[in-house]
Amino acid sequence: MAGNSFGYLFKITTFGESHGKAIGVIIDGCPPNIEIDEQFIQSELDKRKPGQSKITTQRKESDVAQILSGVFEGKSTGTPIAIIIPNEDQRSKDYSHIAETFRPSHADYTYQQKYGIRDYRGGGRSSARETAARVAAGAVAKLFLKQMGIEIFAHVCAVGQLESPNLDTTDLANLLATREANIVRCADPATANEMIELIDGVRKAGDTIGGKIATVVRNVPVGLGEPVFDKLHADLGKAMLSINAVHGFEYGSGFEGSAMYGSEHNDIFVQEENKIRTRTNFSGGIQGGISNGMDISFRTAFKPVATIMRDQDSIDTSGNSTTVSGKGRHDPCVVPRAVIIVEAMTALVLADHFLRFKAYKNEQ
Amino acid sequence: MAGNSFGYLFKITTFGESHGKAIGVIIDGCPPNIEIDEQFIQSELDKRKPGQSKITTQRKESDVAQILSGVFEGKSTGTPIAIIIPNEDQRSKDYSHIAETFRPSHADYTYQQKYGIRDYRGGGRSSARETAARVAAGAVAKLFLKQMGIEIFAHVCAVGQLESPNLDTTDLANLLATREANIVRCADPATANEMIELIDGVRKAGDTIGGKIATVVRNVPVGLGEPVFDKLHADLGKAMLSINAVHGFEYGSGFEGSAMYGSEHNDIFVQEENKIRTRTNFSGGIQGGISNGMDISFRTAFKPVATIMRDQDSIDTSGNSTTVSGKGRHDPCVVPRAVIIVEAMTALVLADHFLRFKAYKNEQ
Amino acid sequence: MAGNSFGYLFKITTFGESHGKAIGVIIDGCPPNIEIDEQFIQSELDKRKPGQSKITTQRKESDVAQILSGVFEGKSTGTPIAIIIPNEDQRSKDYSHIAETFRPSHADYTYQQKYGIRDYRGGGRSSARETAARVAAGAVAKLFLKQMGIEIFAHVCAVGQLESPNLDTTDLANLLATREANIVRCADPATANEMIELIDGVRKAGDTIGGKIATVVRNVPVGLGEPVFDKLHADLGKAMLSINAVHGFEYGSGFEGSAMYGSEHNDIFVQEENKIRTRTNFSGGIQGGISNGMDISFRTAFKPVATIMRDQDSIDTSGNSTTVSGKGRHDPCVVPRAVIIVEAMTALVLADHFLRFKAYKNEQ
Amino acid sequence: MAGNSFGYLFKITTFGESHGKAIGVIIDGCPPNIEIDEQFIQSELDKRKPGQSKITTQRKESDVAQILSGVFEGKSTGTPIAIIIPNEDQRSKDYSHIAETFRPSHADYTYQQKYGIRDYRGGGRSSARETAARVAAGAVAKLFLKQMGIEIFAHVCAVGQLESPNLDTTDLANLLATREANIVRCADPATANEMIELIDGVRKAGDTIGGKIATVVRNVPVGLGEPVFDKLHADLGKAMLSINAVHGFEYGSGFEGSAMYGSEHNDIFVQEENKIRTRTNFSGGIQGGISNGMDISFRTAFKPVATIMRDQDSIDTSGNSTTVSGKGRHDPCVVPRAVIIVEAMTALVLADHFLRFKAYKNEQ
Repeated sequence: MAGNSFGYLFKITTFGESHGKAIGVIIDGCPPNIEIDEQFIQSELDKRKPGQSKITTQRKESDVAQILSGVFEGKSTGTPIAIIIPNEDQRSKDYSHIAETFRPSHADYTYQQKYGIRDYRGGGRSSARETAARVAAGAVAKLFLKQMGIEIFAHVCAVGQLESPNLDTTDLANLLATREANIVRCADPATANEMIELIDGVRKAGDTIGGKIATVVRNVPVGLGEPVFDKLHADLGKAMLSINAVHGFEYGSGFEGSAMYGSEHNDIFVQEENKIRTRTNFSGGIQGGISNGMDISFRTAFKPVATIMRDQDSIDTSGNSTTVSGKGRHDPCVVPRAVIIVEAMTALVLADHFLRFKAYKNEQ
Repeated sequence: MAGNSFGYLFKITTFGESHGKAIGVIIDGCPPNIEIDEQFIQSELDKRKPGQSKITTQRKESDVAQILSGVFEGKSTGTPIAIIIPNEDQRSKDYSHIAETFRPSHADYTYQQKYGIRDYRGGGRSSARETAARVAAGAVAKLFLKQMGIEIFAHVCAVGQLESPNLDTTDLANLLATREANIVRCADPATANEMIELIDGVRKAGDTIGGKIATVVRNVPVGLGEPVFDKLHADLGKAMLSINAVHGFEYGSGFEGSAMYGSEHNDIFVQEENKIRTRTNFSGGIQGGISNGMDISFRTAFKPVATIMRDQDSIDTSGNSTTVSGKGRHDPCVVPRAVIIVEAMTALVLADHFLRFKAYKNEQ
Repeated sequence: MAGNSFGYLFKITTFGESHGKAIGVIIDGCPPNIEIDEQFIQSELDKRKPGQSKITTQRKESDVAQILSGVFEGKSTGTPIAIIIPNEDQRSKDYSHIAETFRPSHADYTYQQKYGIRDYRGGGRSSARETAARVAAGAVAKLFLKQMGIEIFAHVCAVGQLESPNLDTTDLANLLATREANIVRCADPATANEMIELIDGVRKAGDTIGGKIATVVRNVPVGLGEPVFDKLHADLGKAMLSINAVHGFEYGSGFEGSAMYGSEHNDIFVQEENKIRTRTNFSGGIQGGISNGMDISFRTAFKPVATIMRDQDSIDTSGNSTTVSGKGRHDPCVVPRAVIIVEAMTALVLADHFLRFKAYKNEQ
Repeated sequence: MAGNSFGYLFKITTFGESHGKAIGVIIDGCPPNIEIDEQFIQSELDKRKPGQSKITTQRKESDVAQILSGVFEGKSTGTPIAIIIPNEDQRSKDYSHIAETFRPSHADYTYQQKYGIRDYRGGGRSSARETAARVAAGAVAKLFLKQMGIEIFAHVCAVGQLESPNLDTTDLANLLATREANIVRCADPATANEMIELIDGVRKAGDTIGGKIATVVRNVPVGLGEPVFDKLHADLGKAMLSINAVHGFEYGSGFEGSAMYGSEHNDIFVQEENKIRTRTNFSGGIQGGISNGMDISFRTAFKPVATIMRDQDSIDTSGNSTTVSGKGRHDPCVVPRAVIIVEAMTALVLADHFLRFKAYKNEQ
């Protein structure tokens, strides 16, 4: 199957290239009678759109979402919800130089080989612009999950070698406000300032830098996840790895856990206020691939964006040496804009798994 | 959908619990006319089976595979290949104590909540025994990929804090031999010895320890991977994360790459012997989610096995405090036996993506 | 899964309600480098659109298709092709009377029960308007199949009790021209005239009438179809049965064949001009669920449209008796407009099966 | 995708060839805590097995089902249920003559062309023996549906030109008993006798004959079916058409309905005992692709089995003329044994749609 769909029961299919007429998504499987708050969808898109600050790309897109179907008198009908986002600020001539060139660490070469044809303008389908459609769909998923009190919170926990300290996650709503109060979307204000300074310097140097996003999901019912292959963390991992520039995913104790002993790693069950909880949470809220009610936690690693404002050696489509100069308007660091994409993909995974859980729920 | 299938065109469905009659798999979509070497399949299973050394579980299973269908006169027919592996050495009474208990960091609690019924013996479906079925299927996938010269090599690159140095991967066949020459399956002999000593000590202490497995895939054709959601590394990540005890996945530069600059991270294209290659390979052989012909490299992190030979506090199924004592025969460290599972899942992802690539291949 | 997608490798997802902003489709899996002839797509839509003749509904829609993605310099890129068709001539007030009523033999009652919410205007998602999106996608499928010389021809073979004689199908292009030369789309001119007269009379009486469509597919390569469940005729059957008002599907000898003897029903193989053919074709071109190279033939039965211009007893949404009067502008007989939908669904099934065949094709 | 799976949430995958070691099925998605009555499963298989009467094939198979997984203490665990049925009475030498021949109207030619390799013994995977696995799975589906009071009843309504009169379907349990009291499984005893005589004569003449099966499903909840493509009747149609020898499917008024007028065809809603029903039921219990609570009714047409006990002209695998003589032990008429397969496939469709309905059920 061509891989432009995500999810089984809450399923999305996206379309659109960076310099085409529009990008968009069809959501098939949003249950009926969910209030579809269009302003909320737009506000989510605004968190992703280009031109939002000095440390992101200076391209301007209003990313205005239009709902074409599936909503009646403000509520989902249970029929497919189509959302389109017209493209506006395309400077296709900025890309004419790459029609015949393969930019290093971009998808130019692989797309050309795979398809034999490539819409080179703005990177075509390989452009991160496509993720706007995911954010729109993720917003609808969030509206669905809202009923259940599920909270999703992501923030930039690292830029380059700068890492924020572990957060006190007691009050996610408060962390969200703190995060949105700075342009790098880190929920630790001190680190945020250092990050902004770092990215600004990188931008002036015509370079780019990577980063990491940490996510917490709270109030997930016990029982989400479909072993043995569609374990909840496996689907979260696939979701994150499908985002442009992601090179790593870990949940709970992650890579650090591989260096630990079982005696220190095991999460002991305790009974608290008539609920079963664990004393520690190295499991990241997921055991045997199924949610156990504790906070789900995971981290996503982003490589530095490949488009840098410096000349680089490369090969052209005839195989000859050439030079690629960075042109266009690009992000020095993608993670501030990626936070909302990570949240969107998280919402999509949870919405899908919630419906799968609902189908099989043990009624006895 | 219940999550017991993996893959789209080369699709496997597994079944079986640890103490049930048998475990097994149906492979639907193995192309016809592939030579099905039953001895090879058995040899792969032998690399996973319990009781193989002092540093793995002492349970004895012969894990003998029987092919029930889909093979005629030694070749695949294009019809489903069913393989079953009878269970033998089950000591169900070793588990009677956990019928009413939730073992820490196991799937007991989540399975009980999700299904309302739990085959507690040996962990039932949540047991890693299920992975034997995957290894059998992965062996068939390897036989299919063999025709294309694709080589898959995985080894234990870390146990606890012990890490092997980076390997010279020029000769994968040689590394394979070195790996199989020690019981921890690390391709660096010096580190292997240290690892064996470490695990043996952990075992004697009644504890367990985590580790990491590094994988290389060579000679992958350019063009495998289906953006935007079924990117090759996203499916590899999901595959690895679906393996018991896995908590992290990274490919190419991985988490380290998130701390790098674009100017140092980009892989420059060069022309070598009429082939396009890259000077470095931080991309791990995948760009824009599509293979570019360079070695694919990734690492999988395993937490320490949750079953330890020590008493632990826990909760019983009525919510009362209880003590769980470790009984049964368990691995102190899972990674030596997991190497072949990682290779199997890798083969399954590649086989599936190869068929998808073949379906859409640009003929012009 | 919500059922708005069709196909596996050549997969479409449609959206849109009769009185919403637009209807449309995403095609995911159209191979790259196919010439996308927009005029052809529009001409196919014109064969379905309302207001085309006196014997179809008098609603006017221009059904203008806009391609939003997946096409570059006139060719498919291998990325998703999104096509939208804005809605124009909606008289929503024509439907205010059914907001609270269940029209007989419509989907009003079942949609209300299933979803708990219903866009009643124009029948919402249950309206046959949705099929315009399928015709657009089917047109793209036809462009793909054209390369292989596959010919698809459908025509109205019955209206009410009027049946056309069996056609001489030697020259399908000629039959197509004959079909398009009359407004009922029957390829036998004499029967066509009788049919037009019959439908016109039915229309004047404020009633509706059913009919049947016969389809022939020529030059299908041997080997399409995926036993045991995705047999070619099983997927054709599902495709046809998914079209509004379809109540029956038969292929080859169909229902008549059930009354025959094996000795008279078997198709004897003969060698002709270095090709294997059959002397008769009761198999309808499909044996064991796989195409054998002979013409594929099948028939689709349509019930009479449920919206009649007469008063009918019914129930309102509170369960009380009420009267439904037929309002709005409806088809007296749906089959003239359905011919192109049948062809479109046929093309979609064949395109999908062709790609699946290509994935598994035996290279030895 | 290779087509050996059926269903989405209640999903089965079958394997096995006629003369291989065994046939079988994995059911993935049977909800937990369903009582799995193994005797019931066996009794269903006994209704399909060969050698059951003088009017069916004289091959002897005990078709004993073994459950290998997914059941614990008599109940489903929610994990995959694997059932295998060993093959016993294979006379492979009966088939040596067809290793090089294409039997008329069999799948020999198409399988050879598609796969390039063919297990010719007993027809390999194309043999109707595969349906035993479906019956086993259908039995589990029936056990699941039993809780909801859903009743499925099928019977032979036609053999050749002999048609049973329409039944009084008030008491389905009684009809079932009547059906099982004769070897042709027709619920009208008079017609049954005529059918038996007809088939016996056909058998003696070394010929075969076709037939039809009528099915009724009662007590289906309102709301099953997933428009626009996975309409309930479309999935039923695909299910039936996937059964060997099926050439036609119709539901409700079927092909006859295509000759009717809307004024006579519409089903008028009435309120009866606080339930909404329809006065007539030309809709066959399904409107807009969704069940409306009335009896679902459909008919499936079977062509005459292709293996006849007479010489026939044919082609061998080198393209030369040859003669095929009917050897082996075959059914003169397949419908008495197919009744249980039709019920099984019906149960599988309903189980799958019930879970899909459950996932999306409107809670408000």
